[in-house]
Amino acid sequence: MRLSAALRHAHRSHASLRAGAGARALKWGNRHLHDNNNNKVSSSWLREASSTSGTSETAASFKSQPIKREGPMFESTVSDIIQRCKEELGSIRVTNPALKPTLAIIQAGEDDRLMEINKKMAGKVVEEILRLNDDNRVHGIFLHLPQSFLSKNVRNAIKPQKDVDGVSDLNVGRVVLGNQRDGFTSPVAAAVLELLARHDAPLVTKMAVLVGVEGPLRVTLQFLLQNNGMILQTCLWNSENLQKQIMDSDVVILLDINQKHLPATWLRPGVAVIHLGSALMEEHAAGWERRAEAESTAGVVPLSAALRMEHVVRSARRWTQEQQYQPWKLRPLKLHPMSPVPSDLEVSRAQTPKPISQLAQEIGILPEELEAHGNTKAKVHLSLLNRLQHQPDGKYVLVAGITPTPLGEGKSTVTVGLTQALSAHLKLNSFACLRQPSQGPTFGVKGGAAGGGYAQVIPMEEFNLHLTGDIHAIIAANNLVAAAIDARIFHEATQSDKGLFSRLVPSVNGVRCFSPIQLTRLQHLGINKSDPGELTPQEVSTFVRLDLDPEKVTWQRVSPLPTQFDIAVASEIMAILALTDGLADMRSRLGRMVVGSSRTGKPITADDLGVTGALAVLMKDAVKPTLMQTLEGTPVFVHAGPFANIAHGNSSVLADKLALKLVGEDGYVVTEAGFGADIGMEKFFNIKCRTSGLRPNVVVLVATVRALKMHGGGPNNLQLVKDGCSNLKKQIQIAHLFGVPVVVALNVFKTDSEAEIDLVCRIAEASGASAAVPCHHWSRGGRGSVELAHAVKEVASQGSHFQFLYNLQEPIIEKIRTIAQKVYGADDIELSTEAQTKMEYFNQQGFSGLPICMAKTHLSLSHMPEKKGAPSGFILPIRDIRASIGAGFIYPLVGTMSTMPGLPTRPCFYDIDLDPVTEEIKGLF
Amino acid sequence: MRLSAALRHAHRSHASLRAGAGARALKWGNRHLHDNNNNKVSSSWLREASSTSGTSETAASFKSQPIKREGPMFESTVSDIIQRCKEELGSIRVTNPALKPTLAIIQAGEDDRLMEINKKMAGKVVEEILRLNDDNRVHGIFLHLPQSFLSKNVRNAIKPQKDVDGVSDLNVGRVVLGNQRDGFTSPVAAAVLELLARHDAPLVTKMAVLVGVEGPLRVTLQFLLQNNGMILQTCLWNSENLQKQIMDSDVVILLDINQKHLPATWLRPGVAVIHLGSALMEEHAAGWERRAEAESTAGVVPLSAALRMEHVVRSARRWTQEQQYQPWKLRPLKLHPMSPVPSDLEVSRAQTPKPISQLAQEIGILPEELEAHGNTKAKVHLSLLNRLQHQPDGKYVLVAGITPTPLGEGKSTVTVGLTQALSAHLKLNSFACLRQPSQGPTFGVKGGAAGGGYAQVIPMEEFNLHLTGDIHAIIAANNLVAAAIDARIFHEATQSDKGLFSRLVPSVNGVRCFSPIQLTRLQHLGINKSDPGELTPQEVSTFVRLDLDPEKVTWQRVSPLPTQFDIAVASEIMAILALTDGLADMRSRLGRMVVGSSRTGKPITADDLGVTGALAVLMKDAVKPTLMQTLEGTPVFVHAGPFANIAHGNSSVLADKLALKLVGEDGYVVTEAGFGADIGMEKFFNIKCRTSGLRPNVVVLVATVRALKMHGGGPNNLQLVKDGCSNLKKQIQIAHLFGVPVVVALNVFKTDSEAEIDLVCRIAEASGASAAVPCHHWSRGGRGSVELAHAVKEVASQGSHFQFLYNLQEPIIEKIRTIAQKVYGADDIELSTEAQTKMEYFNQQGFSGLPICMAKTHLSLSHMPEKKGAPSGFILPIRDIRASIGAGFIYPLVGTMSTMPGLPTRPCFYDIDLDPVTEEIKGLF
Repeated sequence: MRLSAALRHAHRSHASLRAGAGARALKWGNRHLHDNNNNKVSSSWLREASSTSGTSETAASFKSQPIKREGPMFESTVSDIIQRCKEELGSIRVTNPALKPTLAIIQAGEDDRLMEINKKMAGKVVEEILRLNDDNRVHGIFLHLPQSFLSKNVRNAIKPQKDVDGVSDLNVGRVVLGNQRDGFTSPVAAAVLELLARHDAPLVTKMAVLVGVEGPLRVTLQFLLQNNGMILQTCLWNSENLQKQIMDSDVVILLDINQKHLPATWLRPGVAVIHLGSALMEEHAAGWERRAEAESTAGVVPLSAALRMEHVVRSARRWTQEQQYQPWKLRPLKLHPMSPVPSDLEVSRAQTPKPISQLAQEIGILPEELEAHGNTKAKVHLSLLNRLQHQPDGKYVLVAGITPTPLGEGKSTVTVGLTQALSAHLKLNSFACLRQPSQGPTFGVKGGAAGGGYAQVIPMEEFNLHLTGDIHAIIAANNLVAAAIDARIFHEATQSDKGLFSRLVPSVNGVRCFSPIQLTRLQHLGINKSDPGELTPQEVSTFVRLDLDPEKVTWQRVSPLPTQFDIAVASEIMAILALTDGLADMRSRLGRMVVGSSRTGKPITADDLGVTGALAVLMKDAVKPTLMQTLEGTPVFVHAGPFANIAHGNSSVLADKLALKLVGEDGYVVTEAGFGADIGMEKFFNIKCRTSGLRPNVVVLVATVRALKMHGGGPNNLQLVKDGCSNLKKQIQIAHLFGVPVVVALNVFKTDSEAEIDLVCRIAEASGASAAVPCHHWSRGGRGSVELAHAVKEVASQGSHFQFLYNLQEPIIEKIRTIAQKVYGADDIELSTEAQTKMEYFNQQGFSGLPICMAKTHLSLSHMPEKKGAPSGFILPIRDIRASIGAGFIYPLVGTMSTMPGLPTRPCFYDIDLDPVTEEIKGLF
Repeated sequence: MRLSAALRHAHRSHASLRAGAGARALKWGNRHLHDNNNNKVSSSWLREASSTSGTSETAASFKSQPIKREGPMFESTVSDIIQRCKEELGSIRVTNPALKPTLAIIQAGEDDRLMEINKKMAGKVVEEILRLNDDNRVHGIFLHLPQSFLSKNVRNAIKPQKDVDGVSDLNVGRVVLGNQRDGFTSPVAAAVLELLARHDAPLVTKMAVLVGVEGPLRVTLQFLLQNNGMILQTCLWNSENLQKQIMDSDVVILLDINQKHLPATWLRPGVAVIHLGSALMEEHAAGWERRAEAESTAGVVPLSAALRMEHVVRSARRWTQEQQYQPWKLRPLKLHPMSPVPSDLEVSRAQTPKPISQLAQEIGILPEELEAHGNTKAKVHLSLLNRLQHQPDGKYVLVAGITPTPLGEGKSTVTVGLTQALSAHLKLNSFACLRQPSQGPTFGVKGGAAGGGYAQVIPMEEFNLHLTGDIHAIIAANNLVAAAIDARIFHEATQSDKGLFSRLVPSVNGVRCFSPIQLTRLQHLGINKSDPGELTPQEVSTFVRLDLDPEKVTWQRVSPLPTQFDIAVASEIMAILALTDGLADMRSRLGRMVVGSSRTGKPITADDLGVTGALAVLMKDAVKPTLMQTLEGTPVFVHAGPFANIAHGNSSVLADKLALKLVGEDGYVVTEAGFGADIGMEKFFNIKCRTSGLRPNVVVLVATVRALKMHGGGPNNLQLVKDGCSNLKKQIQIAHLFGVPVVVALNVFKTDSEAEIDLVCRIAEASGASAAVPCHHWSRGGRGSVELAHAVKEVASQGSHFQFLYNLQEPIIEKIRTIAQKVYGADDIELSTEAQTKMEYFNQQGFSGLPICMAKTHLSLSHMPEKKGAPSGFILPIRDIRASIGAGFIYPLVGTMSTMPGLPTRPCFYDIDLDPVTEEIKGLF
């Protein structure tokens, strides 16, 4: 039994074709319509096709029939197709200059052609097909194999969208149901019809016979000919009636692999004879080379080849169109809000989320860009940024808030509700970008971060628990740094320079060499040597001793929960994740992290510890944003959740960038900043936008009557609210400092009166807000935020004039002063001795050009939580100044600030449980 | 515009049918072929069908033609189908007693029938179809809608395997390509053909006309009739030629929704007229009820209904067959081993893994049982255990080792290589079950746990890093307990009984009540009250004060890395994950964990802390094993990795159980025990098998010449090896103590001589091993372990006589003595005072009935790492005795044992890096 076969590479050039012919090894190849040499090369295969067709008009079998086939007319058909292909390709190339429509051909070598099909061979062909199915560079697959190879398993292994030869059950089904545009019709069958159509006489009631044609080609021909009114018979070569059937026919269509010829006497005068054998088997193996032998092909060869190539171009176009921006075909989930609104967990559970792969497809993410984590969460690859780099960004909307009560004023619900309204009700592409919550709050004090009521991310328990493991990765990375510090201090304390050096740079098979990260350290130390043997004892000592001062280790272990350690979200690695724009940048930021200083006062970095690469490896998956959905089935990215005090409190730059590409020019990305606008929004502008280069179009400022009353000082409800609007007014002004227009979203509670709502909206507009609208997303979902969505759309279209508040070149103290005076309303700032010393240290180390990330209470515009409204006449005390060099900011500590919440006496884990049978979670919010 | 339509529930009973008719709301329903009342009910709808058919023989339109349709003959056809269905169902029910073949019907109410199709309506139908596609209880979907509703989008929304009416493009394609068995042919078309076949005259050359028939039904009919030699015409009701075409025809097939009737004069004598309208539209809405009106349906109705039901039964059978055990159709990945063998990471990266969903499908995991984590890892739902509960288990093979060198002797590679050989070369279903490694080793000292060389789990970097987050979940759970302990000690120290009580049992909206876990604690304390107000001050005090002694807190924080804390794999939660058999059991084990004791000496548990439910929630995903694959594309479960000293060092019971069901009766599950057989195997038998109830068939004992030389004391190489075999012999004897036969796998290194290999195999067989074979999996993959695979297959078929080494009822000290003497070869044991005290404490607390988990060095059969071979004449010192009550074992500490490896001076993180462009990891092993 012969097991080998040639899956031959069909290049454009004849030389390589010949070289490949008859080879035994499994090989395959792509036919590129174009290579780098663009149009010139493009037309080379097309010319081949048309020049071949030029000769085929003399085809012997056609001599005996009266079909009116003037050379020029037929040629023009092939060149029509060529022309169509060229034009089509040209139009695709406008947006996809690099596209090369490619046909992969699987063929058996000539020696193998007659071999018996066997399972093993079929298995190899199927394996090859499956590989080609998954190869995005291939747009069509052509099985250039004998009919006997084309078993249903082989035929149907081809992805229907790559089946340019129309041999799959599905594509044949489409043809017979008149649904050709969705699939592909056999180009050989189409070529036959094309040839017959050039006949003078009408086809209706003409008799045709198909001899030796089987499978999809027979069925397709049968259907197409009958559809044109012909009467059809089919028979085999060994049929008893063969002669009679042929003599009765006006058209004889033959498939004769073994070059059988019909006796001339069987053909009645005027009959058209069409040989398919060559079109199926000779075309690539021999057709174009052995032109003379191919003369009996009656034009089917070039025509079917051109049609097949047209299919490849069409397939490539479909593929590129699928990848291009378009208004999403989003299938929103229906919402049936209940009153009173049940618990968040009940609302979440009452809705069945779409499979996340379906949502991804709806919004134009390719399957290979998606990494599912179960059925409701998926990570999205950053390669998408590259694919959509030429795509214009959507509008960028920031949700910020007034100075909140300790309960929060609903920025997350507004963010989610607004995108539900935009996507599900206004039918505009829109994305919500949210921060991932820490598990601490989940198990300590109630209050999720997935939104609430009918404006939530679902399933909320997945959102609030492990999600896709990013926080775990951060903890692992953070604590690897801590373990590396401990180990290094221990080993330096217990070993000699020589001992340390021989262990740090061990001899492996008699050879010693530095690892790349050690070379980086040497360069950093000014030692330009790469051979470990060349270091002087002094250099060895400098190299091996970080000399970390145990008292000055600033690196903290972290935990997902409030403990004696920092909480994970306080890790600098979290801030880096939120600010990075990709793997390379993340890796270098991780390396720059300062973990403490040496006894001589030098900053010691993760690079010095040699741990950078391992950190990058631990973080390689965390860098990809996680896709989830809202209650109405609209998309959400959840990515990064740095603290809003010692860090900048915004979700990731990468999620925003991906989302802006995915929504496209007419779409909206709604992202949320932590705490009040004086903190979260200021950091969003001065830190996040500076890093990302992205510019916001609108700020949505969330207010509640409840919080405004807290800020007010009046004698009755309305006066309380009116007085409290001083805070709202101030926050609007802050946004205007940056040149960004404001829409105020009043998050309505059922206890709010109409008069209160009206009053707030009137004051907001009088204070310069472009619009102010009450929102009911919590109780009604996206429908309750439709008015807000319209306002945002309107204001976003007007353009903004964004500017930063300070230049990075200003001294640290001036940058702090600017924020204190312009944003908080302080008269001035006052630095403690500690802060003064640190500032000088940072100046000296060259860290003064970083932006400022103020760690201030969020409960007041000032540093005094009890001062409500818009306080003035105060001096802002700067207790200390610290730095996250890797993340890239300096963070002054203002007044007294705790960075770590503790577990209360009755943590909410008391209520949390799992039903072991239904696997449902109980008591989570 | 009318938007509503009735998607009607088609019950068996007419009453409910009528009730549903014309309803406006979107509804749908299933037709159960059977309900609980089995055959009796089953035949009720079938009787309906046949009794209807009994009347249809008088159908008016058939009166005018000579088709020989004797009543009994036709009835017997319907009853033939009924009989076939019954028999088929009976045979399916043998293995699936609960199966109910179910047809879902989507239909428009009568009022809606003529309404214009519009997008919204089509969208709703599509939504409904998508829901039914995903509903496993539904085996067929029938669109009982006007032809105008059946747009290509609607038709093709149905999953082809549920398209029992044969309306999808794919199913039509299959029909015209003669591929009916894979799909479904329109039952109406099949019924028409069935009726015509009863004609006396042959169909060949007869003229047929289809009037008003469109879409898939027209194409299918056309194809079937032509295939029977008929000559076909089709026309519309408003066609000019209508009368002529009908008068020319021998068979007239009509679709007349509006009950049009043909003038009798148009019909030539003897013509057969078949009305399809009723079969398409009336059948369920009216057919069986309004029998009189249905008389013109000429038998198409009952026949097509019966055929459709036959399709439903066939679909149900296919569905159940897919779910049943069968030899896997595994597509192995080809391996092309290189010499010398490249690094593990290079070998892993040179192979492209199959998509994990493909592997899952190959081994019979249903899509809904799989939770993908990216493309190469997936969690498998425990519901699979339930689905396959009647499936016999496969053979259970344990891989253990001789006393190893510190480098390990290759148990993991043998485990992986053996399954590669079994699955990819012997074509037997087989599964490897491995432990998940801690990240500590990954970043500290080199050496992965994914196997090595050409016997590896791929991608090895995924295996060695976060995997699917289980270890992170354990850390989070472990540290939640630690945080709960800290918080509780703090709050108890700073608050009065009353203060604690009012916070622990707060008044919510004026009502106070205990949470379920607090009620558990009350019961545990013997306080049978559920109203917080009823507790006496003494009871309040008892309830609120755990009175944890800070000096006696035994709970440790954990980290994925070596630090001052325990490593995560040492957490009791890891041991629980490895031993549990499901969610409910895990939850109760978590609750029983003892975290320390009170000042009065009472054990304090996680239940007492109130944290059990939250722990179960954190661990709910970790409880599902992770599916990966070997280099040859065979399946692997990776799940749990408890330490082999203070815990039992075996992968999870759940993974083994799932794997044993998946491989089925003739398959093999190969699982690995940690350390040497004296430790890992002993604990596998006495602890893991006792918990799981599973019984092993064979032990594969791994040895290397290198390790045997270490154990030997001879003057030359061969003598060294010979002497070292004392250890091998002893380990074989240990396995025989448990009644399990042994196959020795000699893991061959290229430095081993033929003479050494022969010697070891001879000694092994002389020592009672059933077989001893050299293995070359590391350099050659599965092909190198084929001989081992054959030996395992042979020995596993012989049956074993498993027994435990001790009874749980024996006193703790006797259980320890038994292990020391029988397994280790000690003369006796000696308990320290500490150990004595602890033992008494455990006896007193009722923990004495637990199995024993010895924490002993793995480098010697004795407690002295330097004693090689098979030491004797020693007393085993028991330094301390501890307990993991939740996991369910007592662990004596033998001699001096460190539980925590530290980071070396040059941890291997120095070599680890990530290429930011290719995203490839460098330097990981």
